[in-house]
Amino acid sequence: MNAEIIAIGSELLTPYRQDTNSLFLTEKLNELGVEVVFKTIVGDDRKRLTDSARLALSRTDICIFMGGLGPTEDDLTREAVADALELPLRRDPKLVTALEERFASRGWNMSSNNLKQADVITGAVVLPNPNGTAPGQWLAGQFSGKSKIVLLLPGPPHELTHLFEAECMERLRAKLPRKSIAKRVLKIAGMGESQCDARVAPIYSRYTDIQTTILAGPGEIQLHLRKQADSLFAAQERVDQLVHAMEEELGDFVFSDNGDSLEQIVAYYLQMREATLAVAESCTGGMLAERLTSLSGSSRYFLGGAVVYSNELKTDFANVPAEFIRKHGAVSRQVAIALAEGIRNRCGSTLGLAITGIAGPTGGTEEKPVGLVFHALASDTGTEVVEKKYPGDRQRVRRFATQQALDMVRRKLM
Amino acid sequence: MNAEIIAIGSELLTPYRQDTNSLFLTEKLNELGVEVVFKTIVGDDRKRLTDSARLALSRTDICIFMGGLGPTEDDLTREAVADALELPLRRDPKLVTALEERFASRGWNMSSNNLKQADVITGAVVLPNPNGTAPGQWLAGQFSGKSKIVLLLPGPPHELTHLFEAECMERLRAKLPRKSIAKRVLKIAGMGESQCDARVAPIYSRYTDIQTTILAGPGEIQLHLRKQADSLFAAQERVDQLVHAMEEELGDFVFSDNGDSLEQIVAYYLQMREATLAVAESCTGGMLAERLTSLSGSSRYFLGGAVVYSNELKTDFANVPAEFIRKHGAVSRQVAIALAEGIRNRCGSTLGLAITGIAGPTGGTEEKPVGLVFHALASDTGTEVVEKKYPGDRQRVRRFATQQALDMVRRKLM
Repeated sequence: MNAEIIAIGSELLTPYRQDTNSLFLTEKLNELGVEVVFKTIVGDDRKRLTDSARLALSRTDICIFMGGLGPTEDDLTREAVADALELPLRRDPKLVTALEERFASRGWNMSSNNLKQADVITGAVVLPNPNGTAPGQWLAGQFSGKSKIVLLLPGPPHELTHLFEAECMERLRAKLPRKSIAKRVLKIAGMGESQCDARVAPIYSRYTDIQTTILAGPGEIQLHLRKQADSLFAAQERVDQLVHAMEEELGDFVFSDNGDSLEQIVAYYLQMREATLAVAESCTGGMLAERLTSLSGSSRYFLGGAVVYSNELKTDFANVPAEFIRKHGAVSRQVAIALAEGIRNRCGSTLGLAITGIAGPTGGTEEKPVGLVFHALASDTGTEVVEKKYPGDRQRVRRFATQQALDMVRRKLM
Repeated sequence: MNAEIIAIGSELLTPYRQDTNSLFLTEKLNELGVEVVFKTIVGDDRKRLTDSARLALSRTDICIFMGGLGPTEDDLTREAVADALELPLRRDPKLVTALEERFASRGWNMSSNNLKQADVITGAVVLPNPNGTAPGQWLAGQFSGKSKIVLLLPGPPHELTHLFEAECMERLRAKLPRKSIAKRVLKIAGMGESQCDARVAPIYSRYTDIQTTILAGPGEIQLHLRKQADSLFAAQERVDQLVHAMEEELGDFVFSDNGDSLEQIVAYYLQMREATLAVAESCTGGMLAERLTSLSGSSRYFLGGAVVYSNELKTDFANVPAEFIRKHGAVSRQVAIALAEGIRNRCGSTLGLAITGIAGPTGGTEEKPVGLVFHALASDTGTEVVEKKYPGDRQRVRRFATQQALDMVRRKLM
């Protein structure tokens, strides 16, 4: 079975807004063994919408329409899909009552246009939407001699996700041949995309039954593996076999094989070793601390740190003598080491982590170009330092640097 | 004239990747007075791709295909669009030579599949792509009795944006009736979406000739205004009139009417007042400093600060006595004030800004629930403090808090 996702709304055809619901829906449909073969985005235009609905019905088994279920004149999904199916709309008295009660309970007047939201395509099941006024609709039947499933879902993400999980997953599962999907994600730090691919391509290309997708971000490669089969056990075993072969090849460049972020892995090791961490950041300006504290409960292992943007603060918060900074320069191997050791001493943490560099686009010199970053990690056994020259814009350089710094903590503790 | 954007690639039909090029293209097309009426995403499947191309040609004036121009078997855009247009492909000898030279200059062997990239639809103009191996193609002509423009663009964003700006904008402008688009963006802090809309809807609803789009994020509302007309002067005057009326209504809740971010506005005011800033953050864990340092040149007004996650660091880095924290609690109006004053004294900055709160999802109590945040701003005229209770998850609470804190600096200096 295959599916088409149709996102409806003129705002999705502006430069400002993007459909994100389809990523969630695709993940859920893939879990059920359904492949998404088209995504269409169409505005609030009755004719274009009806044509799109007709086309989707002619070319895919499952047609999911999202958005355009509200009370305004622009909300035309119900009408257009009913036209495409050549089925009439009926006004559902129970939905009318529910709408009236909803408005009355808030002390609001209900304008008559709200009644549109009680219109149901003949033969459709109403899917309750506890987070909004417009319910979803489910229709399964024969259209033009073929079995089709048609879904109407509300556009706001929190309404759509809840309604889909609660009302659609089981209904779909019951209609679909039983398929199982085995998945794994490998995450890799400290390696470039082409370098990583050169090492794993000879392996995954032997597993043609497994879909392998490589995603690359600054300092992180993700390998998404997915296999569909009748038996989950067999499929998972096969995927695990490929994971194992890749892990053999990549060794400790792999930091996670279960979806955890690098922050989570670092948090895990710090807690396992009963260690604490403090940071001193110059060019990353707080991004490293922000990533470490993005996890709830991070106060158990993260003490805090200093954003030592000015040289005076490098001295005051991380005990780096002014004379020392003058001698070596704020962006130097020596100052990185001194910052890591200084912040460790000041905070009394097990580990001290420091970053100093030139994030750009300005501030670079021939000797110290934009993208040059020193990362240092201090512990009771000494201090290590890593020098890198990162490509890309300010945001990318900063992201690369925090990734490298976190990876140094992981390697130290693992 | 209207347009359809067709994004090609099976990876765009997975849960992991999303087309973002279309936002850039939509902005550029809108500038030329062209409306995007459909976006289609289709996988690397010859039949589906050809059908999609045929459909686009039948329903829109400008058809932009992106992706699928590479050398692999999966790259089928050239073939499918040529089929839909019923035009043959020809192998361009100049492109063959350029490809051979490109590979030779890098000392690489060129496998024969690379030659696909020299195939051009008969009648198309080749658009050079200095950032990649696959050139773009431009075709303008009569198809099925109608004037159409067909564009083939490479998928990687940096290739596409450069090629479109350098090779397509002027060509499109020359083919299109002269239209001008006047635009403005108003950005608002310290107001919720419904509150803002309630105040401006009566105004913008009188300007039916101007397209108004409201976007809401944590602590920030954006009003995007856009009007198309034959004369830029008249259109801009009209848009400016609406901007003026909205600014009258919203007063100093508007922080920008030219697209600047709140960080940029704060940077602007700090430099204008020759003031400096230092921050002490607890629950935002570095996010405030990260936002302030996301701008190049921020060292001119941002000295740095402390991520005082532990109580000890609140004492050591921001001079808040341990006894004082014990008495009032780390998340309190009093400690927020003490942090702002302490960090200002320690760093010798004009302003000291502090945040302490409970970002959640754990750590809340009945008295101090998740989402409770205190923000304080210290200056030579005293210290102000703002208490808020934010909705949403950890990331959202933290984003709200940094937005409020930055807005306090803006209001102080404006």
